[in-house]
Amino acid sequence: MKDINSDEMTRRLWLYDNIREIVARYGFQLVEPSTIENLETLEAKSGPAIRNEIYWFKDKSERDLGLRFDLTVGLTRMVTSRTDLPEPIKYASIGGNWRYDEPQFGRYRYFTQWDVEIFGSASPAADAEVICVGADIMQNIGLKNFKIRISNRRLTEAYLNQLGLTSGEKLDQTLRIIDKIRKVTPDELMKEFLAIGIEPANIEKILAFISINGSPVDVLQKLAEFEFQEEKAKIAIGELKLLADSLEAYGRTEICTYDLSIVRGIGYYDGIVFEGYDEAEEVGAVFGGGRYDGLCKIFGKRDIPATGVAGGVERLMISLEKANLFPRMKPAAKVFIATIQPDANLEAAKLAKQLRERNIPTQIDLKERSLSKQLAYVNASSIPYMIVLGRRELESRVVKIKKMSTREEIETTLDEVGSRIEQLE
Amino acid sequence: MKDINSDEMTRRLWLYDNIREIVARYGFQLVEPSTIENLETLEAKSGPAIRNEIYWFKDKSERDLGLRFDLTVGLTRMVTSRTDLPEPIKYASIGGNWRYDEPQFGRYRYFTQWDVEIFGSASPAADAEVICVGADIMQNIGLKNFKIRISNRRLTEAYLNQLGLTSGEKLDQTLRIIDKIRKVTPDELMKEFLAIGIEPANIEKILAFISINGSPVDVLQKLAEFEFQEEKAKIAIGELKLLADSLEAYGRTEICTYDLSIVRGIGYYDGIVFEGYDEAEEVGAVFGGGRYDGLCKIFGKRDIPATGVAGGVERLMISLEKANLFPRMKPAAKVFIATIQPDANLEAAKLAKQLRERNIPTQIDLKERSLSKQLAYVNASSIPYMIVLGRRELESRVVKIKKMSTREEIETTLDEVGSRIEQLE
Repeated sequence: MKDINSDEMTRRLWLYDNIREIVARYGFQLVEPSTIENLETLEAKSGPAIRNEIYWFKDKSERDLGLRFDLTVGLTRMVTSRTDLPEPIKYASIGGNWRYDEPQFGRYRYFTQWDVEIFGSASPAADAEVICVGADIMQNIGLKNFKIRISNRRLTEAYLNQLGLTSGEKLDQTLRIIDKIRKVTPDELMKEFLAIGIEPANIEKILAFISINGSPVDVLQKLAEFEFQEEKAKIAIGELKLLADSLEAYGRTEICTYDLSIVRGIGYYDGIVFEGYDEAEEVGAVFGGGRYDGLCKIFGKRDIPATGVAGGVERLMISLEKANLFPRMKPAAKVFIATIQPDANLEAAKLAKQLRERNIPTQIDLKERSLSKQLAYVNASSIPYMIVLGRRELESRVVKIKKMSTREEIETTLDEVGSRIEQLE
Repeated sequence: MKDINSDEMTRRLWLYDNIREIVARYGFQLVEPSTIENLETLEAKSGPAIRNEIYWFKDKSERDLGLRFDLTVGLTRMVTSRTDLPEPIKYASIGGNWRYDEPQFGRYRYFTQWDVEIFGSASPAADAEVICVGADIMQNIGLKNFKIRISNRRLTEAYLNQLGLTSGEKLDQTLRIIDKIRKVTPDELMKEFLAIGIEPANIEKILAFISINGSPVDVLQKLAEFEFQEEKAKIAIGELKLLADSLEAYGRTEICTYDLSIVRGIGYYDGIVFEGYDEAEEVGAVFGGGRYDGLCKIFGKRDIPATGVAGGVERLMISLEKANLFPRMKPAAKVFIATIQPDANLEAAKLAKQLRERNIPTQIDLKERSLSKQLAYVNASSIPYMIVLGRRELESRVVKIKKMSTREEIETTLDEVGSRIEQLE
C-alpha cells in the first residue's frame, strides 16, 4: 500500500504547481484520461502481452477492462475520438497509473506521471517544444545539473535496415536490447544480441553506431560522414538538423546531447526520442518521450502525428529530496487557541471562526484537555503561535499571542487579534 | 470511460483549490491513502458483501486486492498504523474512488470525493468542526442555499431498542430502510418495514419519530418530552445539545436542521450523522458524514474515536454548473506568434522563450501553416492576442500586438513586447 502522508502531499502539490506553471506557459491544456480503459485500448499497440503487466478484470457486463499504465495511451484515445479540436491539440496531464508488479525500490504498483503531448504537428519544432517543457520543469523546480540525450529512432531503424535487419520482430528485439545499454554490462548486451542471432560483425557495427554521442553539431557532422543513401535515413537526419536549430533558438543546446544509444523501450515511438537525466543523482531518466506518429491511427478514427514527454513524479521527488530542493514544510496551523476551562470552549470556537475567515489556519482544543496537555499538543504539532482563553481574557477582552519558539508574548484585544496574527511571520 | 476534458479540469482545479483553502483554515493536513487496498481492509466493516460493489483482483503473489471505494476506510487504516502522531489527527484528502457498477446518470465507475476526518476526539466540538468545514466549502464556492440535516444514530438506535429492536441484524436493516426515506414513497417504506417483520404499531411510532425535524432548539425541546430513561438515549441527546451550542458559536445554527430521519446508509456510523443539501438544485446530498468511533478498532491497532465529512465532486460540479458559479474559462494561451515565412520560425521560438519566461502563455505555429490558417487557429482557440513576425518586423525590430476581439493594434519593439503583453488584460 502506497499512502501519501502530509509531508509528501505538501511536496507533491508544490511539484504539481510547478509543472502546471510551465505547461501553461506553452499553452497546454490540462486534461485527464479515464483511469479505466477497455482492455483492447491498452493492448492496441503492444498486443495481449501487456496483460501480464497491467491490472485487468471484467465488469458486470463481462467487458474486459484494465487500469491505465501510462497517460499517453489514454490521451491519444481522447484526441482520436474528437474531431472538433483545432490542431495542434496540446494536452498536459498529471495522474496516477498502475503496473501489475511486485513492488521494489523506486517502483510502485501505483505511480504518478506528468505528461505533455502535442497532437497534429509532424514538425521537429513540436519535438523541440516538448523537450523544452521537460527542461523548463527541471529548471523551475531547481534541478540544475540535468542533461537531455536525444536521438531519432527512425535513424536507428534505417541503420539497422542497412545491416540487413528488416523484419519487424527482429528489429523490435534489437531496439529493445539497445534500450538496455545503461542498465546492463557490455558483455550482457553482446550476449543478448547473439541470442537473437545477430552476426558478430554486425554487433560491432551496432555498438559503434550507438556509441556516437556529442553536441548536436558534432553528431550531425559524424552522421554526414556515413553518407546514407536511403531516404529514411536522410529524413531522420533532416529532422535532427531542424531539431538542433530549434533547440538553439530556445537556448537549450548546452544541455542537449545527441546520443544514438537512445531508442526508448516502448514500442509506439517512431521518430525523435529523448531522455532527461538528473546528472547529480543517479536515479535514471527523470523524463523521456518522443514522437509516435503511428499510434493515433491504431485507434482508427484519426491519423495525426504526435509527440510528447512524460516523467515519473516519484523518481523526481527522490532527486528533489536528495538535492534538498523542496520548500520548507508549513505546520498544519498557524495558531492554536487554548482554553483554561470548558466554559471558554465556545468562545474559542467564536474566535477560531473569526481567524479562519481571515484565512489564518487555526486549531482549537477538541479533546477537553488540561492546559498543559494542550501546550504539549501545540509543541508536538509545531504550531508557531498560541492564544490562551480563560475567564480573565474573556472579561477583559485582552489576550496574549504567544510565539512558541521565543516565548515572546504580544498583548492585543480580542477584536484585533486576527489582524495582529495576519502580520506575524 | 470517464475522461476529464480541459474545461472540466479547469473547473475541478478551481474547486479543489477552494476545498484546500477551507481545510487549511481548520488546520487539516492533506494526505492520500493508497488507491489499492488489501481486500480484507475494504471488507473490515461491511463484510464480504462489499465484493459485489468494488473492483477486486489478485496480485502476482495471489493476495486479494481491491480498489478503494471511499477515502474514509483508507484514511482510518493510515491513522491506525501510526502511533507517533499527536491527537487529534486532522486529515483531509481529495481523490478518486471506484465502484463496480453499471454507469448511470450522476454515478460513475470512477468518481472523486473530498474527505475531511478528525481522529482522536469524542467531543461533539469535533463533529461541529467537520460540519462547519462542509458549510464553509459550500459558501466558498458560492452555493448559497444549502441546508444541513443532522441527527444522532445513537439516539435512533436507543429509540429502536426501546421498541424492542435489539438484535444487531434487524436493527441494521431498520436503519437501512429509514435511510431510504428521501428516495422511496411512504407506502414502499411501510412495505419494507413489514417485510422485515416490524409490527404496524411500531412502524407508526418509528415513522412519527423520524418525522421530527426543526431547529436544534425545537427538536431538543421535543426530545425532552420523550423523557428517555435509558443511558444511551441520554448520552445521545447530550451530544446533540453540545453540538447545538458549538454550531451556535460558529454562527451556523440558521442553516442547520435537526432531522431524526437522518441515519446514513453506511454501516460504520455510530453517533452524530449529517447530510448537506443544496436546496436550489435537487441533486441529493452534496456532502455527508458523521461519527464512526468503532471503525478504528476494527483495524486492530488503535481504538480512537473519529468523525468526518465527505462529498462527491461530480455532484457538486452539477450544482455549480446549474448555479453558473464556475469562473470564466481562460483560453489555452494569451498570445500566438504567427510567422509569415519559415525563416521567421526560429525567431518566433526565441520570442516565445522570452514571453514564457515572463509566465505569459504563448504559442507558436507548429504546423508550417499559411498566415490565414494560423489566423484561423488563433480564432478557433480563442487566443486573445496575436503577433505577426515577418522579414519586415525582424529587420525593424518593431512588431504589432493585435487584439483579436477589436482588431486594435499596439505597436511596440521586439524588446518591449513582453512587458507590453503583461500589462494587457
